[in-house]
Amino acid sequence: MATTELFIKMTFDRWNGSITNLNAILNSLTDETLQKEIAPGKNRGIYLLGHLIAVHDEMLKLLDLGEKLYPELYEPFIKSPDKTVTQIPTAAELRSFWTKQCEVLKQKFDSLKPEDWFEKHTAVSAEDFANEPHRNKLNIIITRTSHLQYHSGQLVLLK
Amino acid sequence: MATTELFIKMTFDRWNGSITNLNAILNSLTDETLQKEIAPGKNRGIYLLGHLIAVHDEMLKLLDLGEKLYPELYEPFIKSPDKTVTQIPTAAELRSFWTKQCEVLKQKFDSLKPEDWFEKHTAVSAEDFANEPHRNKLNIIITRTSHLQYHSGQLVLLK
Repeated sequence: MATTELFIKMTFDRWNGSITNLNAILNSLTDETLQKEIAPGKNRGIYLLGHLIAVHDEMLKLLDLGEKLYPELYEPFIKSPDKTVTQIPTAAELRSFWTKQCEVLKQKFDSLKPEDWFEKHTAVSAEDFANEPHRNKLNIIITRTSHLQYHSGQLVLLK
Repeated sequence: MATTELFIKMTFDRWNGSITNLNAILNSLTDETLQKEIAPGKNRGIYLLGHLIAVHDEMLKLLDLGEKLYPELYEPFIKSPDKTVTQIPTAAELRSFWTKQCEVLKQKFDSLKPEDWFEKHTAVSAEDFANEPHRNKLNIIITRTSHLQYHSGQLVLLK
């Protein structure tokens, strides 16, 4: 296997493993439990799920893979802290968004050729990218895997 | 920059960023706070810190970089759940172990040549590695970064 393909596989094995892990956590929690705070005074499970969907939606823009699926989630789940927005989707709706989004992301990721992953993402200028070639599309997968793991370690506390 | 060096940089940027992030969390917590549970009935901060040191110590063996620094932490922080072992190091001792270990790991990681990271780690056989070349040393850094992020998301709840 060429080094490029090998590194892409290593990166996506970790991304996919983290998605699988979060799915197992979500499947072990009821909608009622998702309404609870992960620790006293901290974010609710439902907020973290909405936050993950909103952040993963940003990936579509960063990777130049089309429009967001759920742009309405930016305001309540990224811009606003938990418990400050009263109108948010139900746990059942967010679960359905999450499942759909995982499918769409997988399909879109699979459509990229290995070399595409080493192109610049959309939030870096061509000038900066010339000096900082690590700011490529694959790096978005690496950093969002870290983010997903961070919040998975919190959601698991609801079990 | 050659592709191999670029991958290694991307992987270590995320590892180092995760270490820096955990250091900031630890610096914001007192020793007394580390004695608390991250959520009611869950692991204490001190246990998670000991667990991270014990897991990072295993990396030395997996990467064939020498003996563990704190082999005595395996039993209380990997093999045993929290609150089942009465004799564990103090928070101050664990902080000192963590700082020392981060330095040693950095020094040892820096001593490896780029191509070394694509060699097999010590827990995979040469036979399996021939078919699964992603089970290399760099992959240990990727998976342990995930693990570190997972528990960082928990330790931050003590703030």
